[in-house]
Formats: sequence, C-alpha cells, structure tokens
Amino acid sequence: MKTAVIMGSTSDLPKVEPAIEILKTYGVSVEVRCLSAHRVHEGLAAFMAETNQNGTEVVIAAAGMAAALPGVVASQTVLPVIGVPLSGSVLDGTDALYSIVQMPSGIPVATVAINGSKNAAYLALEIMAVHHPELREKLLDERRKMAEQAMQANEEVMAKYKE
Amino acid sequence: MKTAVIMGSTSDLPKVEPAIEILKTYGVSVEVRCLSAHRVHEGLAAFMAETNQNGTEVVIAAAGMAAALPGVVASQTVLPVIGVPLSGSVLDGTDALYSIVQMPSGIPVATVAINGSKNAAYLALEIMAVHHPELREKLLDERRKMAEQAMQANEEVMAKYKE
Amino acid sequence: MKTAVIMGSTSDLPKVEPAIEILKTYGVSVEVRCLSAHRVHEGLAAFMAETNQNGTEVVIAAAGMAAALPGVVASQTVLPVIGVPLSGSVLDGTDALYSIVQMPSGIPVATVAINGSKNAAYLALEIMAVHHPELREKLLDERRKMAEQAMQANEEVMAKYKE
Amino acid sequence: MKTAVIMGSTSDLPKVEPAIEILKTYGVSVEVRCLSAHRVHEGLAAFMAETNQNGTEVVIAAAGMAAALPGVVASQTVLPVIGVPLSGSVLDGTDALYSIVQMPSGIPVATVAINGSKNAAYLALEIMAVHHPELREKLLDERRKMAEQAMQANEEVMAKYKE
Amino acid sequence: MKTAVIMGSTSDLPKVEPAIEILKTYGVSVEVRCLSAHRVHEGLAAFMAETNQNGTEVVIAAAGMAAALPGVVASQTVLPVIGVPLSGSVLDGTDALYSIVQMPSGIPVATVAINGSKNAAYLALEIMAVHHPELREKLLDERRKMAEQAMQANEEVMAKYKE
Amino acid sequence: MKTAVIMGSTSDLPKVEPAIEILKTYGVSVEVRCLSAHRVHEGLAAFMAETNQNGTEVVIAAAGMAAALPGVVASQTVLPVIGVPLSGSVLDGTDALYSIVQMPSGIPVATVAINGSKNAAYLALEIMAVHHPELREKLLDERRKMAEQAMQANEEVMAKYKE
Amino acid sequence: MKTAVIMGSTSDLPKVEPAIEILKTYGVSVEVRCLSAHRVHEGLAAFMAETNQNGTEVVIAAAGMAAALPGVVASQTVLPVIGVPLSGSVLDGTDALYSIVQMPSGIPVATVAINGSKNAAYLALEIMAVHHPELREKLLDERRKMAEQAMQANEEVMAKYKE
Amino acid sequence: MKTAVIMGSTSDLPKVEPAIEILKTYGVSVEVRCLSAHRVHEGLAAFMAETNQNGTEVVIAAAGMAAALPGVVASQTVLPVIGVPLSGSVLDGTDALYSIVQMPSGIPVATVAINGSKNAAYLALEIMAVHHPELREKLLDERRKMAEQAMQANEEVMAKYKE
Repeated sequence: MKTAVIMGSTSDLPKVEPAIEILKTYGVSVEVRCLSAHRVHEGLAAFMAETNQNGTEVVIAAAGMAAALPGVVASQTVLPVIGVPLSGSVLDGTDALYSIVQMPSGIPVATVAINGSKNAAYLALEIMAVHHPELREKLLDERRKMAEQAMQANEEVMAKYKE
Repeated sequence: MKTAVIMGSTSDLPKVEPAIEILKTYGVSVEVRCLSAHRVHEGLAAFMAETNQNGTEVVIAAAGMAAALPGVVASQTVLPVIGVPLSGSVLDGTDALYSIVQMPSGIPVATVAINGSKNAAYLALEIMAVHHPELREKLLDERRKMAEQAMQANEEVMAKYKE
Repeated sequence: MKTAVIMGSTSDLPKVEPAIEILKTYGVSVEVRCLSAHRVHEGLAAFMAETNQNGTEVVIAAAGMAAALPGVVASQTVLPVIGVPLSGSVLDGTDALYSIVQMPSGIPVATVAINGSKNAAYLALEIMAVHHPELREKLLDERRKMAEQAMQANEEVMAKYKE
Repeated sequence: MKTAVIMGSTSDLPKVEPAIEILKTYGVSVEVRCLSAHRVHEGLAAFMAETNQNGTEVVIAAAGMAAALPGVVASQTVLPVIGVPLSGSVLDGTDALYSIVQMPSGIPVATVAINGSKNAAYLALEIMAVHHPELREKLLDERRKMAEQAMQANEEVMAKYKE
Repeated sequence: MKTAVIMGSTSDLPKVEPAIEILKTYGVSVEVRCLSAHRVHEGLAAFMAETNQNGTEVVIAAAGMAAALPGVVASQTVLPVIGVPLSGSVLDGTDALYSIVQMPSGIPVATVAINGSKNAAYLALEIMAVHHPELREKLLDERRKMAEQAMQANEEVMAKYKE
Repeated sequence: MKTAVIMGSTSDLPKVEPAIEILKTYGVSVEVRCLSAHRVHEGLAAFMAETNQNGTEVVIAAAGMAAALPGVVASQTVLPVIGVPLSGSVLDGTDALYSIVQMPSGIPVATVAINGSKNAAYLALEIMAVHHPELREKLLDERRKMAEQAMQANEEVMAKYKE
Repeated sequence: MKTAVIMGSTSDLPKVEPAIEILKTYGVSVEVRCLSAHRVHEGLAAFMAETNQNGTEVVIAAAGMAAALPGVVASQTVLPVIGVPLSGSVLDGTDALYSIVQMPSGIPVATVAINGSKNAAYLALEIMAVHHPELREKLLDERRKMAEQAMQANEEVMAKYKE
Repeated sequence: MKTAVIMGSTSDLPKVEPAIEILKTYGVSVEVRCLSAHRVHEGLAAFMAETNQNGTEVVIAAAGMAAALPGVVASQTVLPVIGVPLSGSVLDGTDALYSIVQMPSGIPVATVAINGSKNAAYLALEIMAVHHPELREKLLDERRKMAEQAMQANEEVMAKYKE
C-alpha cells in the first residue's frame, strides 16, 4: 500500500507530520513531498505523473491560506485526493477551508477538518481498506480500541464524580 | 461496484439526485436511503450494519443544518464516508459545512462543497477506481472529455471576442 | 432531583466542571459521563436508555467541533437536552454552536453560549424548578443575591469615580 | 399546563405561529403576547410579573436583529425561557442568534435554531413533560410516529431508486 | 456638561476607563455606573429615570456578549445613547457588535468600534459640542494637535526612510 | 434645527429617503447631498466646510461596500456624524458595517444598523434634542405613541389567540 | 496595448464581460479565454507561455468558488495578474475572495471586489497607463467626467430635496 | 523606478517594513509616508499631488480597521494603488480586507492578503516590470531561485522521510 503526502511549505511540516506517522504505523508506504502549487509547478506535475503510475492509492495534500495545492493536485489525477486546510494566517484556516472544499464539479477534493492531518491519514487508510481486507481489520481493531479507551475514560470520569 | 447514498430528509432529494445519476451512469450499484441520524437511529444502524457486510465500497451521506448524519454514519463504519453539506437553512449551508468537516480524530468524513453532490459521486468513483482499473480508465476518459469540452468552450469564447 | 452531564472527551472536563459544581451546590444529583457520539455509540445508547428510566429530569451535553453529541442525545430521549458548544478548534466554537443550535424540527436542543457551562446548569435548575417549588425559591434567592452583588459592585464603581 | 409565547413585533407572527399551533395541538394553554423589550418595557414587566405567579411553566420569546427580548424576559423570571432567533434583517438571523445565545452567567436562555419556532414548542413540551407523565407519553408517541413516517419515507425513496 | 457611563460588569472596567478619562480631561462630569441589563433591572431603571432629569446630555453604555445593555438603556431615554461593543467572549466582540448595532426602528444606539471606548468619549464630546461652542473649539484644537502629531510622525517616518 | 444627509451614490436614495422624511416630519431642515468620498473629493470637502459654518447640528452619511464616506465626512468635522451601512453588494452590508464602525481613535462615527436610515434620523433628532427641549418633548411623545401602538398590537395579538 | 482576460467557466461570462467592454472602449487589445485551472492545465499553461512572450501587459483572471485560477495564472507569469472573485455559490463569493486574496509571498494577485470586473479593467488600464501617457490622460479625463456626473447627480438630488 | 508607500499609523510600520525592504533590494526608490486618511487629509492630498507629478509608478497603501486610506489614495490618482489590509483589531483584519477590497466602480484598489506587505512589493515590482525589461528579468530570476529553493526544501523533506 502506497500513499503520497504533499505539503505546500516546509513550515507546514509540524501540522502534517501526524498524518505521516499514522500511515507508517499502519505499514503504509508514504512518499512525502514539499511542492507548492504556486512555486514549483513542474516539480509538482512531474511528481503527480509519477504518482499516477507507481501504484500510489491515495494522495494527501495540505495547504494554508489560498490553499490551491489540493485542487491542483486533484486536477492532475483521478486518484482520490484528501485536502487538509491548515491554519496559520490571521484567518485561522477559514480561508484554506473554503479554498479546498469549494471545488468545481468533476474535480473533487475530500476535505477534512482544519489542521485535521490525523483524519486525513485515517481517511486514506479507509480508502485503501476497501480492497485490503487486512487493513480493514486493523482499522476495525483501532475503532474497538478507541471505543475501549473511550469507555475507560468514561469509567474514570464516573469514578471521579461518583456521589 | 456498490455504493450507498443516504440523505437525512426527502426534501434533500433534489440536491442529492445528481450524485445518484452520475454513479448509475458509471454502472455503479447505488442503495439509496432516507435515514435521519436524529429520527431513525435504529433504521440507520441496521442499514449501516448491512452496508458493512454487503460489499458496499463507499457511502455518501448528505445533510443540512446541524448535519450530524455523515459523522454518525462514519462512526458506524470504516468504509470511506463522503459528506455533502446541504444549504436550505438561512445560514446557506455554512452550518452544515462546519458540522460535517470538523470531525474529531479517528472518525473522518470526506467533505465536499456545499451542495456538491456531483463531486461526492466523482470522489466515490475515484475511491472505487483505486482497485477497479476499468473504472479508472473511464474516469480518465471523462477527464479527457471534460478537458476537450473546456477547450471547445474556450474556442467559442475566443471566436466571440476575436478582434 | 437528578441530572446527567455528558461530555464528548475528557479534554472537555475543565470547561464542563463549572456546570457540575453549580448543580451539586444546589443539591442536585449529577451523573457525569464521557461518551462521544462518534466513538461509543452503544455506551451512549445504553446510558440514555438508563437515563430515560431512572428519574433523570434534564440532560446536559457538551461538545466541540462537529459537536454531534447534544443532537444525538436529544434524539434518544424526550427529556430536555441542554447543549453546550465548546471552543477548542481554530474556529473558536462557531463550528460547535452551529452544529448544536441548528437542529431539525422535532428534536430540539436547548443551546447556551459557547463555553456556557454555568448557564447550562442554571437552565437545568430552572427546568427542574418548574415542579420543585423549593428549588425555585433557591433560584430566586440567588437572583436576589446576584442583584445585591451587582448593586454593591455598582456602589464600588460609583465610589471609585465619585467626582 | 400553561405557557407564554412573546414576540417582539407583529411582523414576527408568521414565524412564531408554528410554535403556538404545536402547543395547542398538545392541549397546552398558550398566552400569546407581542411585547417589544425596547418599546413596551412596563407592559413586558407587568406581563412577566403575572407570568411568574399564574402557573406558567415555560416562556418562549422570539425576536430578530438585536433580539434583546429573550434575555430581558429571562432576567425577569426563573422560569425556563426559550429564545427563537428570527431572520428578517440582511444578516439572516446571525445577529439575532448571537444576541440570544451569548447570555451572561446566571441568566440562561435556551436557544433553538434560527426561525426554529417548532423546536421551541417541542422543547417547551419536553420541559413540561418532566413532571407531566401523560405529556411525556404523547411526546414519545410523536417520536414513534416521526420515526415511522421517516421509515416510510425511506421505503418510498428505496422503491424509487430500486435497481 | 454631564454624561453617564454605564457598563454591564466590573470586568469591563479596564476597557471602559479610557472613555471616562477622556471625558474628565475635557472637564465633563461623568456618572459611572455598573448596572447589568440582565441582573439589576430596577437599579438600571432608577438610574435612567434620574439621568433623564438631571441634565445628563449623553449616555455611554458598554457591554460584551449578548450586550443588551445599550439597547435597554436607549429604550428608557431619548438622550443619545452610545454603545460600545466589548470583546471578551470567544467570538471577539462580533456577538456584542451585532447585538448593539442592529437595533429596531425608533430606538437608536450610536455604535462605535469593538472596544472603541475612546471614540465613545469623542462622540459624546461632539454631541455636547453642538451647543457648547467652547467645547467645539477644544475638539477642533485636539484635531489640529492630532494632525500636527500625525504630520510629525510622518516627518519621522520620512527621515527614517530617507534615501 | 439643521441637518445634512449625504449619500455616496444616487442608487442609495431609496434606502436613505426614510431618514429624510422623518427629519422633515419633525420640522428639521435637511440638506441632502450625493457626494461620493471616492469620486468628488473636493465637492465633499466644500460641502463639509460649508456645513461646519452654517449651523448644521448633525450629519448623516450613508454608504455601501467599502463605505469610506462616513469616516471621511467625520474626518472633516467635529459635528456628530451618523453612519448608515447600506447593503447592496453580495456581502449584504457586512462590508459597509465593518468599514463604518471600525473607525480609529479620535474620529468617531455613530453607526446604526445595516440599512438603518430611520434610526439615523431618530439618533440625529435625539442629538439635537439635547438642547432643543421642545424636540425632546416631541420625541418623548413619539415614544409614548410607539408604546401605545405596541400595546394595541399586543391587544390584537392577545385577542387573536384568546383561548 | 494588450491584455488577457481569462475566466474559469463560460457561465462566468456575463460577470466578466464588463471588463472586456471597458478595455475595448479604451482601445486596448483583449485576448479572452475560458481556461479552468482545474480542467485544462495544459491549455492554460500554453496560453500563459504565449502571453508571456506576446507583449501582453496585464492579465485579468476571474473565478468563483475555490477560485484557484488567478493564483495559478500568477504562478506562471511575472506580469501583473488581477483576480476577480465571482459570486455564484451559496457562499456569495466569500469563498472566492479568500481563495484569491490570501496568496503566499512571492506570487501576488491584485484582488478587486467580488464581481468587480469593471474595476479589474480600470486597474489594468491604470497599470498600463504608467508607461502610456496618452492612456493616463484618458483615465484622468474619465475621472473628471465621473466627477462631473457625480456633481450633476448631486445637483439633481439637491434640487429634489430643496426646501 | 519610483514608488510610494503610505501607512495610516506609525504602529503599522513593522507590518509595512517588509515591503520597503523588498523594493529597496530591487533598487527601487521608495517614498515612505505615514499619512492617515482620517487625520491628515491635506497632508495626504499634498503628497498625492506631488506623487502624481514626480514619476512615481505605483503607490502602496496599508491600513487596518476601517482602512479608508487605500481607497482615498486611489481616489486621488490614476496610478495603480495596492492596498494592504492590516490585522490589529479584534477582527483580525477582516474589517480592513472588506474596507479595502470592496471599492466602487471606477476607483480600483489592488488588494493583497491580510498583512501581505511582501506581496504588495512584488506586485508593485511586477507592475513596473511591464515596461522595465531588466526588472522583469530580475523578477524571473527570483522566481527561478524561489523554485530552486522550493525544490531543495522538497529534497530535504524527501530525505527526511525516505523509507
């Protein structure tokens, strides 16, 4: 299983890293790139051409402000593209959210929450899991663990407030 | 290839229909349901249990206002869930957009534009195409046609304004 | 008198605690739970089933971001449900406010201010006071004290700026 | 069972009427008033004094724009006050929503959706039902009917899109 | 010349103080009060009754969040009322701005910028200056000084960047 | 008593006219001008120079979009300037509201509601009434009539819903 | 003098046409294209390569929703690029405004008002006029005419309201 | 090559300085001024009269809050005016953005991102480069360097995450 994670600027790295870590934890191969849609057009096009041929299954693209990257990536592939709007400007990511989610018909971007890198990774895993039954099992396992931890947190909260 | 399309209310039908049509055009099987997250809890849970077992590959969930449906659907499956925020309230869909896109970690919803049913369908197709090479070809074909039509529209615009 | 306070995540605890404290000060029994609408579906359903039978009079549900919890709780009871939108995301609680207040017809959530846990508690007390005359007296007392303190603050401000 | 419904202007009547109708359908007595917080101070105070003594259980207050009415009403009673933000200005009710929901600590207003009169009525019914078991039964019945209708709508949608 | 400055809470004092200082600098008498529209109804009404009779020429009212104070004050006088929306909630004063500026016809509030206490004072001075020629002269003087200082700041900036 | 009403464009006239009518009803002299801050700089400066000398007591300035007019007017006078943000662009007057209300210290604009021409007139009347006791009486009369009409509207609403 | 006007979709044509007309009125040559940044990548790149070599002085790019076009155009040229955010989605052009104006450092887009095609044309003319003195004269002439018309409109308004 | 940079207040200097530095790096002459549209009307008019005659090619105007400066500057010249909305108020620059970008027809302001001084400089350079081929070359060089640096950053990111 192979994914690509593209960010627009190295300053985005700390906000994107959680996605990379989750994907690696699941044994997924991740090609990480820093390729601005506005600065390195050809570098991006070259990488997308490669990505379209090398068995990559999902692409994650994260960007802030005008945030054209996810849409431009989506326009160069029919692989599912997940867009992560990043905060960072004074507009707190609303600008990036609108730039990423409001795509024209025919070129979809699967948008997650502002700074939602973790969910970008989980969405990528879910997409790959459609045809990787063992990954599906792992995700179901994680959901079960998540639920167990949540129930345990509930126990602790209950205990704390026991009357 | 099998998908499910769930809306929260029959009044959402006209806004959801374009997704169904596109999916059918591509020969994809579509289970259409009208199951509000707030009104028919158990009906929804039953359908999701079924959906998790019957080979469905992607779920599209469309809702307006508080728009809990896509998130609740996502919490009952590890299939990829695409959320379509619908306008309809006086807030023009901003309420639904925020309710759908701002999901907590671990339960992603792939959000598309407000009223973006068409892109929900295309995103579903792209997700399925990851492992259906013939679907991928069809999508690439459509992109080519889309580009051709766009270039033709450009020709007409050029002709109209030829000096 | 019996209430339930549900939050979506243990990280919400500091913002929810003021509600619990006020309720306890008034001698109201409080069942506190941490049950995410998206993670522990069944745990939440089980708790709501119990809550519907054990004499609970009001439910307070607090959540941030997509904030489906109050609505999902409301969909499982005809007890009055008070929703507290929590800030915490970069959107400062606007996302949670819209997700909680814009409920569809038939499933109301009584929404209070962003981070308005205290008012959630006072609203719960007012609801219970409808049929608990001694609680009503206590609330009227508090209003009188509140007014006295406010008038005293006014005296201090007047004194400070006396010309 | 007795409620009061107050609006700020007669022009609000069409948006408030659904609340009155639902309450009457449930056999609840409704005192309807048109008393602006900014224009008829004393008339409002007199009515609230009366309301506080005559067995009224819940007050619904609806207003648009600066929408001070629900808060001012809440400041004159410890009965639960439900606020309905109305659209009507160019700001589409966002102004009223903020004015109603962002109340200071100690004076809560139970806010429902913009133009959410129906839910104001249902919330009032739920509040009264806490100590009126027969009303609780009726509400549970309505929920069941609502669910049945929703499931039937689902059947129709399924039938329409049967493949 | 006599003015009244009312705030809703003592916590607003630091944001209101600049208005008081400016007014005093101009030799204007200032009655300062802390009278919440929601907590001390009668205290506020009593003060406004007094204010309407004691030669007060302008009233400044500052409040945050639901910010009903300026409107309620305006409804109890035909003196000009200046409203100062205060930040303080997570909504950064947008809530207060909407609550104060969107008044219904017939009860105006002269709204200044969020946290704009200084301009509230200057506006009050301008209003009084309409019939106090010596105050008008002082304001014109201040404008001249302001312009001189601005031109001097300009000189410094010019000098700094002289090429 | 003398006022000036300035709008930025003749297309604003229908939204401004209610202010002119109310002022005339009160026997106030109104100089009406259409002088864009961006187009007729000198015409505006000439008019303001005149206005500063001819006994005008209040200036009303109405504008949409970037809405610089009220602020530019305010910068040329120490008369109180009332700003009316007009809708008209796709932003529904939010742009004009922000442009008018967020003035820098020292140059206040008394801002009223979006399209709030009527209240601009009432605010102007209140400002003039500070030193025109007979106008104050008229305003108090109108408030009384307004209250009577409101109470009568209330009677009709009560009658309509009498049980 | 030569300009290029690019729109993202033929449906944008009615909103873009005023720019073309103004430019032609001034005797400026206009290359009009319909080239979506997301659909016809290469067509756009080819046109921009040509535009960079054929003496074009300014590029106007208009787009709605995610509105990547102006930024993508700007990334392929060092000619000044003027961006026109178009309304059309339920978000009324706020989405396009944010997508166009919030560009990263180094790749500027000169953004005008939502649907501000006319000003895009005037800005293009101003940019070209920097080195075309005769165009500068024409623009100054238009400003003078604009001012005359404005002063005449003012005369008419004055006449209409003459007392 | 000659430009002018005007800010409304000395407190804006740190946000404006990057524009000045970039322009100087390119060997462009910069007249820096601090001239508030609301405080030093005549100083601003005098400077603009001078600017219109001394060969200045582009004007940059930066302002926060009501931000009338760029529009007022634009109304006094047919030189291209670049507006920089500055954050600084509690509204984080949204107020300034709307005030600057929503200009009426005929008086354009080329708006860049909130706090986007750097891009204001680059846009000014691009505008001047239309007729300064050597500047054009420098800008193309910088783009190439920018792209190289971006590709190098990409290499580092790739290396860091090499599997």
